Parts: sequence; structure tokens; C-alpha cells
Amino acid sequence: MIEKVIAHLTEQRENHLERLNAFLRIPCISTDPQAKAAIVDGANWVLRFFHDAGIEADILETGGHPAVFADTGPVDSGGPTILVYGHYDVQPTGGLDLWESQPFDPVVRDGRLYARGSADDKGQVLTHMLAAEAWKSVAGGLPIRVKFLIEGEEEIGSPHLGPLIERERERLACDYVCLSDTAKFSADTPAITYGTKGMLYKEVVYTGARNDLHSGTFGGTFPNPANALVNTLHRLKDADGRVTIPGFYDAVEPNTAEELAALRGLPFDEQAYAASVGAGALAGEKGFSTMERRWLRPTLDVNGLLSGFTGEGAMTIIPARAMAKVSMRLVPHQDPVAISRSFDTYVRELTPPGIQVAIQDFTSCAAYACPLDNPGLQKAAAAVEAGFGVKPAFIREGGSLPILPMFKQLLGAESIMMGFCLATCNAHGPNEFMVLDDFYCGTQTAAHLATKLAE
Amino acid sequence: MIEKVIAHLTEQRENHLERLNAFLRIPCISTDPQAKAAIVDGANWVLRFFHDAGIEADILETGGHPAVFADTGPVDSGGPTILVYGHYDVQPTGGLDLWESQPFDPVVRDGRLYARGSADDKGQVLTHMLAAEAWKSVAGGLPIRVKFLIEGEEEIGSPHLGPLIERERERLACDYVCLSDTAKFSADTPAITYGTKGMLYKEVVYTGARNDLHSGTFGGTFPNPANALVNTLHRLKDADGRVTIPGFYDAVEPNTAEELAALRGLPFDEQAYAASVGAGALAGEKGFSTMERRWLRPTLDVNGLLSGFTGEGAMTIIPARAMAKVSMRLVPHQDPVAISRSFDTYVRELTPPGIQVAIQDFTSCAAYACPLDNPGLQKAAAAVEAGFGVKPAFIREGGSLPILPMFKQLLGAESIMMGFCLATCNAHGPNEFMVLDDFYCGTQTAAHLATKLAE
Repeated sequence: MIEKVIAHLTEQRENHLERLNAFLRIPCISTDPQAKAAIVDGANWVLRFFHDAGIEADILETGGHPAVFADTGPVDSGGPTILVYGHYDVQPTGGLDLWESQPFDPVVRDGRLYARGSADDKGQVLTHMLAAEAWKSVAGGLPIRVKFLIEGEEEIGSPHLGPLIERERERLACDYVCLSDTAKFSADTPAITYGTKGMLYKEVVYTGARNDLHSGTFGGTFPNPANALVNTLHRLKDADGRVTIPGFYDAVEPNTAEELAALRGLPFDEQAYAASVGAGALAGEKGFSTMERRWLRPTLDVNGLLSGFTGEGAMTIIPARAMAKVSMRLVPHQDPVAISRSFDTYVRELTPPGIQVAIQDFTSCAAYACPLDNPGLQKAAAAVEAGFGVKPAFIREGGSLPILPMFKQLLGAESIMMGFCLATCNAHGPNEFMVLDDFYCGTQTAAHLATKLAE
Repeated sequence: MIEKVIAHLTEQRENHLERLNAFLRIPCISTDPQAKAAIVDGANWVLRFFHDAGIEADILETGGHPAVFADTGPVDSGGPTILVYGHYDVQPTGGLDLWESQPFDPVVRDGRLYARGSADDKGQVLTHMLAAEAWKSVAGGLPIRVKFLIEGEEEIGSPHLGPLIERERERLACDYVCLSDTAKFSADTPAITYGTKGMLYKEVVYTGARNDLHSGTFGGTFPNPANALVNTLHRLKDADGRVTIPGFYDAVEPNTAEELAALRGLPFDEQAYAASVGAGALAGEKGFSTMERRWLRPTLDVNGLLSGFTGEGAMTIIPARAMAKVSMRLVPHQDPVAISRSFDTYVRELTPPGIQVAIQDFTSCAAYACPLDNPGLQKAAAAVEAGFGVKPAFIREGGSLPILPMFKQLLGAESIMMGFCLATCNAHGPNEFMVLDDFYCGTQTAAHLATKLAE
């Protein structure tokens, strides 16, 4: 039967691309309070998809943006039940002048589909939806039970997902959670991801005088919030690139010889990696390889800076205010709550007299790692091999998926991550894209997954 | 005759305020390429003022924004000729949400006139224009010859003023340049300013990868331009608040016992000074008093920062670009050209591999100091005492007036600075204001100046 499903998927490629384009045209930016209508449109688009495919589906109200739940129903053969998790919301676009085509007007160039959300996550979650639709259409049903939970708040840290899962625990019950929101290892090698980093995201605001002040009349006599903030940010890392927040590394376990050997076994070209994003050099924590830095070591980055005069020309002021966004990526065993507290204390200690500091918390979540001997992981790997014609690499990921520790805790299920996009797909930057062939192979992989898990 | 002129000025106060308001309503922002029409309106307003007062005046084209030249003509008594220099252009407004009333809709609250340009410099230069008008109206002419040069590019560093003065050397010939673009020493004490700081203004841009990158996927493996920039900015000053640019202090002379004694003689309350701008503490270069830091020591300030995501919420990117505006205020004998070169070399040295650096120069000028025994200074002080009823303090200024060293060089004339606004008038920030009484006393001072210099 799987051959017929695959043949059907191949026939329908043009149709699938058209529907992905329709999905991508909805500007579901979850960080943007102005985009509420688009968010509702996004949820309804997903709902209609399932209804049109003959799959039962409901809107789940969350108190925030709605989620969509769907269920292909029980099967007689009694295989495992999977819960496909994905999200229809997207990141902000950033400056439009940096996009070569409009972010919500999808365009194919050189076999790549460019649009905000093409990779993260509309293009990826749609593969599972299309595979379920194909099984229904060709075989009248799926060889395993597949549930879907597609939410609209992933890019703002899924604030309502925990309560929703708790409330809907029974309906969401599953043996595995299955996600496609990660990347392939490289253009040639697909990947099963078995671990992600945790995250802490902070906004630090320094305030000095009541107003911006003339830098001639007052310069050199008051603390300048911009100078004070750069001093504090500088002190968050030492010269070796190690984070200096007290206790930051306390729970971090040394990398094992096994992990390091596995890393070295992966085909990885540092020069090609740097060239892929146009970076002039690699850099990071002293004493660790680039791959260790990416997957096994926690990091800290300044994500944004704003202070004083930023227009063209010269405005000679001492800014009244300086703001920085700072994020930390955590590894397993690091406690986001304890590190958040330590960050706040440390930043306050570094703040000089005369500067008022305000620290705001955004997303916070722990890291996640699935045991490599989990049987679901091996079957998923077989599905990826069938879908892409290449054995996948087992990898970890520097990005964060706050829902993974949550699924583990609330549903008792491990998560299987099958990534179909490229790491260089500009997921959160301008010119986000998905390789069209990966979209089609991903759809085949999702179809194979049902067969493999049913075996 | 001066009594009649003063009586006339007192009678005309309402009319003078109306005309100042009309002048302030023209949004002559010289940094803004969109404001060209307002700049021309500003120049024409000044030209019409002189023509209406029966004073010969012309527009001087500069290749940039026009300047206005006026001349009350030779006098038989043969006293000195002064050139009143001022500017009709203004600083940008900055964020409008920080203004309590619209910057170009002047409003009087508690005896203060709030508007962009009220203090810097429309309100101040108008005092001299009104005094000349009053002399013409009451006495048919002035006791000394007064020329005016009122330009439209002061806030962008007067890029065309040097060539203009060279070209118009003969018409502009004078014994003293007279300016009102500085501040009183305090609300109670007017001031003659005899020195200003020089300035260097730089924009430093760091560039890393081609695009903003996902901070999870790529974090910790590439140089982050925002982190790199805060590290570099941090290194521009040491823990004692001393600028670390090589050679920065080489030409700075130690403060003399005489200067220090003069500083200590001025009534100055540190707490009141800090409270006046709402600053929580004073700070600055170690080993120097607040007054020394303000007037006698060079300074360095970050004036603006921009990088990555600065909107609401969290966007987890490694920015592709980070920008800082940095200004330095220089003291006499420091060479702006040499220090500019040293800054560039030093910043390039601090820039880590993989980061591209671009440095743009804006305003650059030397410091200025007029000998305290200059006879014009003493006569100006007598005029201020007559106008305000209080002896002025002789002070220096942390701000920069690039034209002072230029006047000295091109016209051979020392500059006399009589400031009528408060140092806390928010000259370059939101809610700029001028105390109305100071505007009226300033106008009287300008009228007295002609008499005193003719004596």
C-alpha cells in the first residue's frame, strides 16, 4: 500500500506546492499584536485542511492564539499512536529591505521556496498533514493512529501549551511525539535530532538621567547608560568566550568520549560551514570544537542593542536609556530558573551607581535529550532513509524547543525530531527558504513513518 | 539713548515673543534631508526680519543650506565692529513621545518657552536681532557697526562655513565675533564663556555573517558583531574612566592652580547639578572634580547603539550588524586629526577576526580658548551685568563650537560668548526650553553691548 501512497504523493506535487503557498501567504507573526486576524486565519486554514481530508479536527482555545487538534482515529492493528506537533505561527520578518522577495509572497528560485515560515514551520508540518491526507485518500485510512497538535504560539515560547496539554491529556495521549521543526545535518544528509538546547532570554534596560542630555554640557560627569551597558555586557563573557555568570557551568557535564567520537564521525567541513552564512571566521568557547560549541556547550549572545541616537549623522547626546536583548542557550541539567536568578543578581552587581536597571524575562526552557536506544528513533530513521534515499545522521541541535521537556513531563512521551529543512535556511532571518525537493521527500518520509511504526 | 532703547524693548515684549514663536514654528532640522524646504523658510524668515527692520541683508549661498548676512553699516564715531554669529538650524527632535508638547509648536509653561530651537539657537540669536532693530527704530542707528552671519548648518558641523568665510572675508571683517549659543552658569548667574571643547564624532559599524542568524543553530560558533562591539566599546575607557586610545592625553596640559582656584570660586552644588537632570549619581574620570571633568578634561561617550532585534518580545538571532555612535570632547592643544587616526587604528586592532569594521567620521573640530585679558570680554561682561542686573561668571563650556577656531584663523578675531539659556535647557534632547525672562534680559544685554563697546 505504501507504494500507492508514494505514487499519489508524487503525482500531487504541484497541488501540494500550491497549498503550501496558500498557507505561507497568511502572515501569522505571533510576536505582533497587530497580527491577531492572521493568526486566526492560520488556525482556520489548518482546520479546513483536515476537514477537507476527511480527518476529524477541532480548534482548541488556549486563552492565547488557538491551536488545532486532529485525529485519524484508532486502528485495528494496534500499533503505536503518534502525536505530530507543529506550529503555524512564524517569526517577525525583520527589515523588509533585507528580503529579496516579499516574506509573505512565496517565490521559487533555484529550487528553493522563499517565504517566512517556509522552513519554520509551515513547510515542515505540512508534510505530515499531506501524508495523512494521502493515506486517507489512497487507502481509506492510516496503518497507525496519528494525532496532530498544531499551535500558534511556538515563536513566543508556547505560553499556553502547558495548560492546554494538561487539560487535554487524554485526547493527546500518545506513544511518541513526532516533530519536524529541526534541520537536516547538511544538504546531502537528513537527520534525526535527539537533543535540543534550553533557553533563557532577557531584556536589560539601563536608565540614567531624566532625558537625553547634551554630551558637551554634561559629558564626563554622569554615568552614561550606553557606556555602562556595554561594560556590563562585556563582563558576561571572559576572554576565552566562557560565560562568567556565577554558577552557569555548575550542572554542565563533561562531554563523554562516546559523544565526541560520534561528533567526529559526522562529515563536517568548518570552512564550508562558515562560508554557508558568509562569516569571515569561526570563534567560540576556548578548548572546544565548532561541533561541540554548537550542540554540547551552552552559549550566550547579545541579540539586540538600542540606545540614544541611531539615525543618520551625528547627534551629540548622552542617552537617557540603553537596552540590550541577551539570550543564553542551555544544555541538559542546567536549571533555567537558577541561572536566570544568577544572571539577574550578577547584572545588578555590575550596574554602577546612578544607573537604574530593569530586567525583563522572555522565553525560558530547559534542554532536552532523548535516549539514543529509544525504538521509535530507529524506526523514524528507517522512514527518513526511505523518504530521502539516504541514511540520516543522529544529531543534536543548538536551537530550543520548549515543548520537548513539557511533552516528556505531561504525556510521558519521548520526542522524535525529523528535520527536513537546511540549517542555513535563514529560519529567523531574512530570505527564509525551504528546498522544494526536501519538502517532497519530507512528505514521503511522513508517509513511510506510519508504515515503519506499524511494523 | 540706551535708556530709550531699553524702554522700547520692554514695551515690545509681547511682540518679541510672537515673533520668536513664528521663528520656532519653522522645523529647520539640518540633519534631516526631508527638511530642505523648512531650511529655506528659516533663512528667508531671518532675511525678512532684517529688511523689515531697515537693515541691509542678503542670502549667502553656501553650496549647502543658505546663510544670512546683515550689516547695520559704518558709524562715524569709529568704535569696533562686531560680527554676531548664530544659526537658525536646529537638532532633530528625537522621539516625539518624550516631548510634553510638540517641538515645533511653542508653548509657555511656568515662564519657560518650550520648543526645539528655543535655546539652541533661535531664541538666543534673535536677542541680537531685536536689539539692532530697537536701536534702528529708537535712535535711527547703532553706536557701533554690527554685522550678522546667521547660518543653517551649525548642527551638522558647519561644513560650508569655512569656504564661505574665506570667500566673504572682507564683508565679514570685524574686531570681535559675538555669539549667544552657550549657557548661563546657573539660573541666577549669567556667564561669559571663554573656552569650548573640541569634538570628534565617529560611527563604528561591525559586520559579521551575511544575514541575521538563528542564535540556536549558530550561536557560539561565529563572532557575534553585537558582542564584539560591546567588547571594543568597553575597551575605550579603563576602570578609572580614562580614555585608553593611544596618545589621547599626550597634548593635554595639566590644570593650573589658577584655573582650579577659579573653578572652586564658582558657586556650584553637585547635588543640585545632579538633581537638575534627574541623574542618580555623578561619575567620571578618577582624580578630577565634577567641574574639572565638565570644562577642563576631555571625555568620551557612546551616543547611540543599534543592533539586531530591538522590538518588543524575543527574537533569537545573532545580529549580522552592530552600530555605535561615539563622540569625544577635546580640550585645547589636542589635535582632532591625530586623535581621529589613533581612534581608528585602535578600534581596528580591537576588532576580532571574522568581524568587518567600517568607521565613519562626522563633525571634527578643535577646542577654543579666548585670553581672559581680552578687552572685549570685559566690556561684554559689563553689558551682561547691565542686562541681567548680575555680574556674570567667566566660565568654560563642555560643548563644542567648531566655528571659534575657524573665526580666529580666518578673520583674526577672538570670540565673545554671552549665553542666555540654562545648561539644563535640554538643548539636544526632548522638551528644550528657554526661560522667557532670560530671553528679555538677553535682548537688553545685546542692546547694552553696543553702548559698552562704543565707550
